[in-house]
Amino acid sequence: MINVAILGFGVVGCGVAEVLKINSDSIAQRAGQEIKVKWILDIRDFPDSPYSDLLTKNAEDVFNDRSVDIVVETIGGAKVAAEFTRRALMSGKSVVTSNKELVASQGPELLQLAKDNGVSYLFEASVGGGIPIIRPLNQCLAANEIDGITGILNGTTNYIFTKMRREGKSFEAALKGAQQNGYAEQNPTADVEGHDTCRKIAILSSIAYNEFVDSDSIYTEGITKITTEDMKYAEAMNGVIKLIAVSKRINGRIFARVSPAVISKEHPLANVEDVFNAIVVKGNAIGDAMFYGRGAGKMPTASAVVADIIDIAKHPGSSMMSVWVRKDKNNIIDIEDSLAKFLVRVQVADISEAKGKIASVFNQETEFIELGSKTNELAFITPFAAEKELNGSINRIKEMNSITAISNIIRIEEE
Amino acid sequence: MINVAILGFGVVGCGVAEVLKINSDSIAQRAGQEIKVKWILDIRDFPDSPYSDLLTKNAEDVFNDRSVDIVVETIGGAKVAAEFTRRALMSGKSVVTSNKELVASQGPELLQLAKDNGVSYLFEASVGGGIPIIRPLNQCLAANEIDGITGILNGTTNYIFTKMRREGKSFEAALKGAQQNGYAEQNPTADVEGHDTCRKIAILSSIAYNEFVDSDSIYTEGITKITTEDMKYAEAMNGVIKLIAVSKRINGRIFARVSPAVISKEHPLANVEDVFNAIVVKGNAIGDAMFYGRGAGKMPTASAVVADIIDIAKHPGSSMMSVWVRKDKNNIIDIEDSLAKFLVRVQVADISEAKGKIASVFNQETEFIELGSKTNELAFITPFAAEKELNGSINRIKEMNSITAISNIIRIEEE
Repeated sequence: MINVAILGFGVVGCGVAEVLKINSDSIAQRAGQEIKVKWILDIRDFPDSPYSDLLTKNAEDVFNDRSVDIVVETIGGAKVAAEFTRRALMSGKSVVTSNKELVASQGPELLQLAKDNGVSYLFEASVGGGIPIIRPLNQCLAANEIDGITGILNGTTNYIFTKMRREGKSFEAALKGAQQNGYAEQNPTADVEGHDTCRKIAILSSIAYNEFVDSDSIYTEGITKITTEDMKYAEAMNGVIKLIAVSKRINGRIFARVSPAVISKEHPLANVEDVFNAIVVKGNAIGDAMFYGRGAGKMPTASAVVADIIDIAKHPGSSMMSVWVRKDKNNIIDIEDSLAKFLVRVQVADISEAKGKIASVFNQETEFIELGSKTNELAFITPFAAEKELNGSINRIKEMNSITAISNIIRIEEE
Repeated sequence: MINVAILGFGVVGCGVAEVLKINSDSIAQRAGQEIKVKWILDIRDFPDSPYSDLLTKNAEDVFNDRSVDIVVETIGGAKVAAEFTRRALMSGKSVVTSNKELVASQGPELLQLAKDNGVSYLFEASVGGGIPIIRPLNQCLAANEIDGITGILNGTTNYIFTKMRREGKSFEAALKGAQQNGYAEQNPTADVEGHDTCRKIAILSSIAYNEFVDSDSIYTEGITKITTEDMKYAEAMNGVIKLIAVSKRINGRIFARVSPAVISKEHPLANVEDVFNAIVVKGNAIGDAMFYGRGAGKMPTASAVVADIIDIAKHPGSSMMSVWVRKDKNNIIDIEDSLAKFLVRVQVADISEAKGKIASVFNQETEFIELGSKTNELAFITPFAAEKELNGSINRIKEMNSITAISNIIRIEEE
């Protein structure tokens, strides 16, 4: 029998207890032994909880109990959670978590600590909610060199974009709707500014490239500046705008970015709508593989946590994840040096004059998009070039008399 | 160091040697040790092969070599492959294969033999080519009771349907094109009659429900009767026709079926085109998760074989798959008792008269589909009911004077 202690009885912690209960028979069969919740640690009172006999407010109950094999950390944040994770690992208990903030910031040290103590630190639930992605990257695609990852990793922003595109709602109205439906927090900053997505692509990249990719080094742009106007131009290109996380290995160096981007409707990610998430992994043997499902929610996330618990039960005493090496920050390619293609929407005095001027800047064929309904606006697609060059060209365009304003600049992701 | 012997140096066997070579560094890092090909067994000569020093025609070289830890069986078929697999397992060597025929027919016995000898019998490559699906079902979704699986599991038929729908080609012309492009065998029976798909859904179901689902007990219908005419009616329903494998657990019993089916364009499988495969898994905690990628091909399939090799290298001496129990065949729900909904295309003398007659048979609202271009043809959608009832109703319709012929009957899959 395996004894589990759940630290933090919020949505995910509660879901973990529930999944372990409702699927206990099949879980025991797959794990080869019964899995029992021994303690639930939370400072709050839950007088009506069916788990009241397992609840404690005293962390020592958990850490002093040598029969506890696995600690589930669903506290969140990087303070108390970090302290408890360290204590658990150092006392020879494996730790399973959904805490992306902690994994993204202290992953290398915590993985090393797990290894040093002959236990595991697993975090399938930290990315993509219930979607199996960490284990597939780590095991199923182990035969591949991973060349790149492209994903829609945040359900809140994908829901907002879906509502904006389908129902013509403004960003503000779509955000409000998401908050009312419980798909967005009252303080939505981490989601809409891309920080949540950034942590997730940092974790996926660290596994894929087997070195720590620091989330602080990843260029991150949120979705607040995208309008339904921009979406109409994407539609005219036969594309959609999504908050896209991308990372690539280029000549031994790594590039990662989070930003809104236009993707073709033929792209496998284009049909990922509402709160769904999906991740496309490019391997040198497998080609493209995609993983799709609900990126959040109590039961999907709990299902990922419990899969980690079962894995530890099946392979006790082995440290299943490689330790991430912290390398020089120079190993990350700067956004200015990365290659991109932009969709630029501009306000103009005269369309045909503006087209001539813009075309002259790029010295090659520039594709223009005009919506019939607009007489003082157009959009153009830049060549594929280093961002610093493109920014230089756009600055030149900005200074032209025939261009009254640059309304938006959005990346186009073609891979 | 782990020594591997490859039995059968065809497309997949050759790919395995290649993947182990080109990605040797990262594979060694992930496996925790070097993985070396010690022998390649094939009765053919390969004088120009870079692996000529590893080639042997004598199986005893492999079986007498106690340093061989893992045997890769890429011979195919269920005769020699079965004999070699048994010998390997009995001599304490793990076996990895892409051979769906053997797994689908003798899986229970071979898994038991592996368990008895403390080794593994793994077959990630037998379903979905490079798509990680066996391991996710077995490990990542282990916290879930699996309620159902829906998939596009055969690249050849999916390619043919894609060409028929997009280019208006007939089945015969599309098949010929697939053969010319190397996407279909010269004898395409196993693909176009659905046998290949049937074996794959049998394997997935056996893992998902933890009991052996015999491919012989699965109702299987191929794609040869589907015409571009049928596709136009599917289009009018905002759907597409795909060769769909489905299996469900219903009140402890299992239902599985392979047949062409209309699915809505909103269904996650609708955009799976060309030779791509995808599998939707329904778990009671995770909800729907989808796995997508290239379902065949040398390198994707080899990548799945090598992932199994790495897994064995990391967990030596453990038997990683549960043994499938052979249960009473009564545990499989008969197709006649299963619930379905049909799209029925009929030739008629007079459209409005025929509509009245057809509606009278079902005693409830029947949805009709008419293509403006057809004056003696229409299609209707039956209610959702047991297939034997629907067949009874369709037989009554067939006998009516106003119906000159039943052109096709195609299932509609809504889940």
